[in-house]
Amino acid sequence: MRSYPVSLERLGEQFAKLPGIGTKSARRLAFFVLGMSDADAAAFVEAIQEARRTVHTCPVCQNLTDQDTCPICADDTRDAGLLCVVADPKDVTAMEKAREFKGKYHVLHGVISPLGNVGPEDLKIRELLQRVADEDIREIIMATNPDTEGEATAMYLSRLLKPFGVKVTRLAYGIPVGGTLEYADEVTLTRALEGRIEME
Amino acid sequence: MRSYPVSLERLGEQFAKLPGIGTKSARRLAFFVLGMSDADAAAFVEAIQEARRTVHTCPVCQNLTDQDTCPICADDTRDAGLLCVVADPKDVTAMEKAREFKGKYHVLHGVISPLGNVGPEDLKIRELLQRVADEDIREIIMATNPDTEGEATAMYLSRLLKPFGVKVTRLAYGIPVGGTLEYADEVTLTRALEGRIEME
Repeated sequence: MRSYPVSLERLGEQFAKLPGIGTKSARRLAFFVLGMSDADAAAFVEAIQEARRTVHTCPVCQNLTDQDTCPICADDTRDAGLLCVVADPKDVTAMEKAREFKGKYHVLHGVISPLGNVGPEDLKIRELLQRVADEDIREIIMATNPDTEGEATAMYLSRLLKPFGVKVTRLAYGIPVGGTLEYADEVTLTRALEGRIEME
Repeated sequence: MRSYPVSLERLGEQFAKLPGIGTKSARRLAFFVLGMSDADAAAFVEAIQEARRTVHTCPVCQNLTDQDTCPICADDTRDAGLLCVVADPKDVTAMEKAREFKGKYHVLHGVISPLGNVGPEDLKIRELLQRVADEDIREIIMATNPDTEGEATAMYLSRLLKPFGVKVTRLAYGIPVGGTLEYADEVTLTRALEGRIEME
């Protein structure tokens, strides 16, 4: 005997597609959404649609933004000669929280992952090389996660960038090895930034 | 320096309002929704709106349904003289999975909770009393969760129902005390149903 309305089951299935949401949680969320006030439900749906409508990648650094150029790229007080390369928009936020880095960013949108079927051509690497060719960049700090794929990506980029005569460094191992940048605290990130070392 | 688009932050805040979703998870979900295909995003939003549009409470048992009367209430092969009272629509699903109960249900939509500011008037108790007065019910099985509030609610209802001359039972303690009905396995629920005892 089916005791659930089809549409409620379907909503549960939609929630279960989200990362980190299991079947039981998905069902719980579906019930919660049913119990929302009309105004709250409308705000939820509107937030989804609004974010998808307005957010795109910054044409310069590839970070997510709702403006023509993102606020960091548009900020002339920041050091345009210093570029921090991160895998993910979330990592820009983590770095900004540390309030130590005054340069600009480049967001790769992933790391090279043979197992995950992600190759260099799937990342914003061409855009990075173009920036190095066009802009006056003296140092590039690799701030990919200190795990195998992050390290491999940093190494790969380092080799690509060396011919341009630009200094390539990576964050010091203040970051716990095997951890992820997103969860590092401000102090650790600051230490990692101060102790950065040049990549051979 | 704000490094997040406002609309992305707002979407994260919306997700953080959902139960069991923390700030970090909410942000992760917001990013995930941004990365969805247009078709997937439309399906997600549509599932929310469709569920909210079509699902309401059954006028008889108060369970959630997308039909005039829910399939269980409409099923003439089930024993209309045997009523199982549960706190939540999720509990109906748990009971149905056990395939042991062939009667009908009544969903209270909560339990009496002085701390949670939920009184008898907030639950579907008036509807239950009306059914007992109108229908030919010979036994009511209390299947609220075996915790303090569930027990207190069952006790409260038992006292209310006794004057109607109806037999009131509760599920046997096959259910682990302190647990929740939703997470009980089929065997445990079946045992609990078989060993049900009359309430004094």
